[in-house]
Amino acid sequence: MKLYTYFRSSAAYRVRIALALKGIAYEAVPVHLLRGGGEQLADAYRQVNPSALVPTLEDDNGVVIGQSLAILEYLEDTHPATPLLPADAAGRAHVRELALTLVADSHPLGNLRVLKYVKGELGQSEDTKLAWQRHWLHAGLATFEAMLARAGSSGTYCHGDQPTLADCCLVPHLFSARRFDVDLAPFPALVRIDAACAQLPAFQVAHPSRQPDAE
Amino acid sequence: MKLYTYFRSSAAYRVRIALALKGIAYEAVPVHLLRGGGEQLADAYRQVNPSALVPTLEDDNGVVIGQSLAILEYLEDTHPATPLLPADAAGRAHVRELALTLVADSHPLGNLRVLKYVKGELGQSEDTKLAWQRHWLHAGLATFEAMLARAGSSGTYCHGDQPTLADCCLVPHLFSARRFDVDLAPFPALVRIDAACAQLPAFQVAHPSRQPDAE
Repeated sequence: MKLYTYFRSSAAYRVRIALALKGIAYEAVPVHLLRGGGEQLADAYRQVNPSALVPTLEDDNGVVIGQSLAILEYLEDTHPATPLLPADAAGRAHVRELALTLVADSHPLGNLRVLKYVKGELGQSEDTKLAWQRHWLHAGLATFEAMLARAGSSGTYCHGDQPTLADCCLVPHLFSARRFDVDLAPFPALVRIDAACAQLPAFQVAHPSRQPDAE
Repeated sequence: MKLYTYFRSSAAYRVRIALALKGIAYEAVPVHLLRGGGEQLADAYRQVNPSALVPTLEDDNGVVIGQSLAILEYLEDTHPATPLLPADAAGRAHVRELALTLVADSHPLGNLRVLKYVKGELGQSEDTKLAWQRHWLHAGLATFEAMLARAGSSGTYCHGDQPTLADCCLVPHLFSARRFDVDLAPFPALVRIDAACAQLPAFQVAHPSRQPDAE
């Protein structure tokens, strides 16, 4: 099993957490998003993943998958021990809704290619770009916190007392939010869950600072 | 079963297609995204869905789910006849990867709240906003077309000869792309699949022009 990864990519970080929670060994293949204009944009990587985004998983049967959430679902399908989705359909729907709140509606807006467009084509300053990043990171967290409150099903983790895909997505999002100085005071439930996750070895080994390509 | 929907929302359109393919009857509850400053932003709707985005599904057991892809997975879980995911894990991963290419990496960038930020906070003109929309609609389609070519598993539809979640996401994306004059000439496979989908009654009844709130 190979994972094309970048230490600071939220999307790759989600997958690293799931691999660790499930105890799946893998080889990390670093793709440097900034060096040489971006290794993810090179033909060699585009042949692996036409989206030119990390992560990509390549398993031992030659299955190649991009999109972090598709990878998480694939790991769940193929390694069902240590489940990361609840056993009931309503619970699964809630966990996926939480994950997508960050994966679809918040994270992509702060992606490198989007930030380049905001600074380049839209001619915005570094400060305006940072405000944009913070705005969408914050928006995702605010919705997530409100959804937890509405559902009333969080426990030690986002949904009950076992980590799920929602936690795999939340922790990297909070890492980015801290990196860009988003105020986390309005999100006490998320900060509490993040602290619980940080106690688990799987979340520790997946952390950006522990990756072979960490800077 | 109730679906909070807006006729022109891509995300709601995806869910309408899946409901029709599975033959699930539902009540459409229109949420007008422009009228009165946006009905989705009102407290009444936020109590249903804290994300203030459409769609939301409320089923007969009181389960309430936001996020179109979480709803599609829920319908697949609870109504497995007429499956919209392949039987094998690798096929499911590919279909989810295709869906997320549009749902996560392309569509959210053209969402109303993002366009408002581009025009408002970033002070961009209507033309620059339209170029932004077209840029990200195009980017999603280009990746999608390349992924189909790499996988070599498309048939009448995106993956084989039965519609899947990927088709439920592709058709609304092409509807938006046409609405905003994105040139579809570089995407012959997508145009061919879209034409095949348009032959199916389920895709016809889900079309924006056929909705009770159509204008």
